[in-house]
Amino acid sequence: MLSSRDINIVEVIKVLGLLLIIEGIAMWLSLPFSWYYGSDDFNAILNSGLITLGIGAFSFLLTFRKTNRAHVGKREGFMIVSLAWVIFSIFGTLPFLLSGSIDNFTDAYFETMSGFTTTGASILNDIEAVPHGVLFWRSMTHWIGGMGIIVLSLAILPLLGVGGMQLFVAEVPGPVPDKLHPRITGTAKRLWGIYVLFTIIQTILLMLGNMSLFDALCHAFGTMATGGFSTQNASVANYSPYIQYVIIVFMFFAGMNFTLHYFSLHGQISKVLKNQEFRFYALITFSASLVISLVVYLNMQIEGEKAFRDALFQVISIITTTGFVSADYLLWPHFAWLIIFVLMFTGGSAGSTGGGMKSIRILLLFKAAAVHLRKLVHPRAFIPVRYNGHAVKDDIIFSIMSFGLFYILIFVIGTILMSAIGLDMESAMGASIAALGNIGPGIGSVGPVENYASIPFLGKWILSFLMLLGRLELFTILVFLSPGFWKK
Amino acid sequence: MLSSRDINIVEVIKVLGLLLIIEGIAMWLSLPFSWYYGSDDFNAILNSGLITLGIGAFSFLLTFRKTNRAHVGKREGFMIVSLAWVIFSIFGTLPFLLSGSIDNFTDAYFETMSGFTTTGASILNDIEAVPHGVLFWRSMTHWIGGMGIIVLSLAILPLLGVGGMQLFVAEVPGPVPDKLHPRITGTAKRLWGIYVLFTIIQTILLMLGNMSLFDALCHAFGTMATGGFSTQNASVANYSPYIQYVIIVFMFFAGMNFTLHYFSLHGQISKVLKNQEFRFYALITFSASLVISLVVYLNMQIEGEKAFRDALFQVISIITTTGFVSADYLLWPHFAWLIIFVLMFTGGSAGSTGGGMKSIRILLLFKAAAVHLRKLVHPRAFIPVRYNGHAVKDDIIFSIMSFGLFYILIFVIGTILMSAIGLDMESAMGASIAALGNIGPGIGSVGPVENYASIPFLGKWILSFLMLLGRLELFTILVFLSPGFWKK
Repeated sequence: MLSSRDINIVEVIKVLGLLLIIEGIAMWLSLPFSWYYGSDDFNAILNSGLITLGIGAFSFLLTFRKTNRAHVGKREGFMIVSLAWVIFSIFGTLPFLLSGSIDNFTDAYFETMSGFTTTGASILNDIEAVPHGVLFWRSMTHWIGGMGIIVLSLAILPLLGVGGMQLFVAEVPGPVPDKLHPRITGTAKRLWGIYVLFTIIQTILLMLGNMSLFDALCHAFGTMATGGFSTQNASVANYSPYIQYVIIVFMFFAGMNFTLHYFSLHGQISKVLKNQEFRFYALITFSASLVISLVVYLNMQIEGEKAFRDALFQVISIITTTGFVSADYLLWPHFAWLIIFVLMFTGGSAGSTGGGMKSIRILLLFKAAAVHLRKLVHPRAFIPVRYNGHAVKDDIIFSIMSFGLFYILIFVIGTILMSAIGLDMESAMGASIAALGNIGPGIGSVGPVENYASIPFLGKWILSFLMLLGRLELFTILVFLSPGFWKK
Repeated sequence: MLSSRDINIVEVIKVLGLLLIIEGIAMWLSLPFSWYYGSDDFNAILNSGLITLGIGAFSFLLTFRKTNRAHVGKREGFMIVSLAWVIFSIFGTLPFLLSGSIDNFTDAYFETMSGFTTTGASILNDIEAVPHGVLFWRSMTHWIGGMGIIVLSLAILPLLGVGGMQLFVAEVPGPVPDKLHPRITGTAKRLWGIYVLFTIIQTILLMLGNMSLFDALCHAFGTMATGGFSTQNASVANYSPYIQYVIIVFMFFAGMNFTLHYFSLHGQISKVLKNQEFRFYALITFSASLVISLVVYLNMQIEGEKAFRDALFQVISIITTTGFVSADYLLWPHFAWLIIFVLMFTGGSAGSTGGGMKSIRILLLFKAAAVHLRKLVHPRAFIPVRYNGHAVKDDIIFSIMSFGLFYILIFVIGTILMSAIGLDMESAMGASIAALGNIGPGIGSVGPVENYASIPFLGKWILSFLMLLGRLELFTILVFLSPGFWKK
């Protein structure tokens, strides 16, 4: 029972202030590109950073002495995490608004929330007309969001007991101290190291394919965060096959549990290959790619390698919830893009930067289903669901089932709301899952070669909220609906 | 543990033989109408009945002496129930085929399975051209299917422990003996009495609206079984408002748990009004009708009473999974028919003749969701899900969650298969849920004013299987997939 006292608002404000200081400094990292390309957004970015950093520092200093870390518990955890994404997105609009790249707050907020939640849905009709500094900031919202998600999913949410996430970290390396703080710090440091390393390697590989440092960094940010913002109007469709294959490989990496990369880098490849979530993730990725490339090859005038590459690219882009586009899958036969649509629900691995329901949950739901069938015949037999050789506790299975049902319910509500605003059924379903799953492109009028500019204002706010819900594994937000949360 | 011996095939064959005798006799009930209207299907129906009765009697006599009722357990229960629907549908094709009303087995099987599962999806392009005797048999497949479902859902499935059905009969009146046989007989007699009574009253009320006895009986069969086969090409769209209101009221009754009708008839109205499933069922029915009639009234050139009647009729027709059509809801604004589409998943009450997931399951999923949110804040608190004032056991909640997830999974697989056959996405989704939910009309090319004639043969077999799965609460069929079922 953690609710026997008031919520420690002071500590919440302090942490958020600290995070805003970091955001302000991060904005200034765009300044070199603004300066180098001579774009006219230098002052806008400078001032955005100043405002953000200033308000952050003010909040931090105001609450610095008044804190008592002993009073930071679950409820403060939920508040900090939720508000972090909301407030980051509010201040993150500044470079867009001050530079005039986006002319209203709704669109700017949608774009920034889409960035920080690593969704990659855009309201920009002409991306290439946006000045380089702002464009760099736009891609960096992805990268910062991805960093946030890694620490969130592997260090914070498991402690908060959200949606079966306890299970996914059973094998996280390192000591497991009781205190919230040192554990988060340790895990974050190890996994951020991997995240930074992959980003650097991908950037170099992209530059070897004749990309500029600017484009290479932006696309590496979009890949490793499974975000999907590109610097090009055509996303990655006009890049060379080499570039596309590099992005394919790194999207696949980004959709893996980052603790598995930690094992790989320490020579424990067998631990990766034996991991049941990884095997399931790889299995659906490659079987879906194979089926779709065959369907595309047999039904369309596209030569073999390109059919395979397009199918592989789009399957990995969607299942990892990145959302980069190399081909318009809506032009493929219905059957092919229906599979793509179903993969939107699957998502990447837990502990990756990917969104969606996560492969491990889908896998465990299948396993629980099989157990349920066996129990119908043998009602009194004890048959546990097994994962990686261990029996999974009933309350974790229950938690995952709840998550699955909530996910579908919220998708349906999102679809109904979007259709009430005027979208047709396919577009409403597409927009709902593309936002909730943090994917970016959907189906219908929000397909891979479209954007979200024409969605009515109210719809943009609904979708922004869906992005937040999906990114924070639903319950981090939904818990605020429970009256028990607010009681002393 | 019931699997410590071979499956008692002899008893299975005996029961199925007995059921075929009943089916054969039931076919002959169409003969008076064939004779009265002088249609040329008299001999076809006479012979169909003879063949069915003959084979049934032969099977029964062959196994009559060899039986040992002590060896009838769960596994035999699952087999009898599943095979009953399959074999009834095989023999039920005879009147269609021998009369030449349908010229191939696939279409005839689809139509008959659609009848016995109370789905009401049709492959007939011109219903009014079918001779009266065959048309009466077609409607009677609904009525017989409805009888089967009442005894199945309120007496057999709860004993087999399928999908949380144990819960729905907690308050079934009468003694609860340990033996399977007397309990089923007792429950069946009580509830069939109500079913017959409602059918007679509705028939009389329809005749008071100037329907012929033939049309009144056929529509009463289609209503009380929540089937949806009409004798008219335009379904009930061309009937008077009076007729439509009579059907509205009786569809609503047919979608209620039949034990509630038992209470009403014994003066215990308060038990009905306090029942949480009934309140939930009534709440969604009337709130959806209200919203849709407003949307239709405000957006289309339809006067008030008709907008209300059309909305009420279609909402009740879909939520009870009847599938009668008074207006083409696909012509309504997207938002209105998207709600209709969502209601397709809800379905009627448990213990009614309706299909779908059932209101009680949806209600309990919402309740379990609320409990889950409270537990996130208070992980160690004991908070049970409550239904009608009692705490619901965890394994029943688990069972209902499994059911919900299986239901969605099968819907998705059905949609993918139908799209692989060539249907567009909306039609594939529509056909999949219209079959699985035993509704009849779907969306897209299988909408309310269309039929299933143009679906490829393979698709008709897939949809027939989905109807069977949905009608038998999934697990009655899925249990055969479990290897444990077949082991000694």
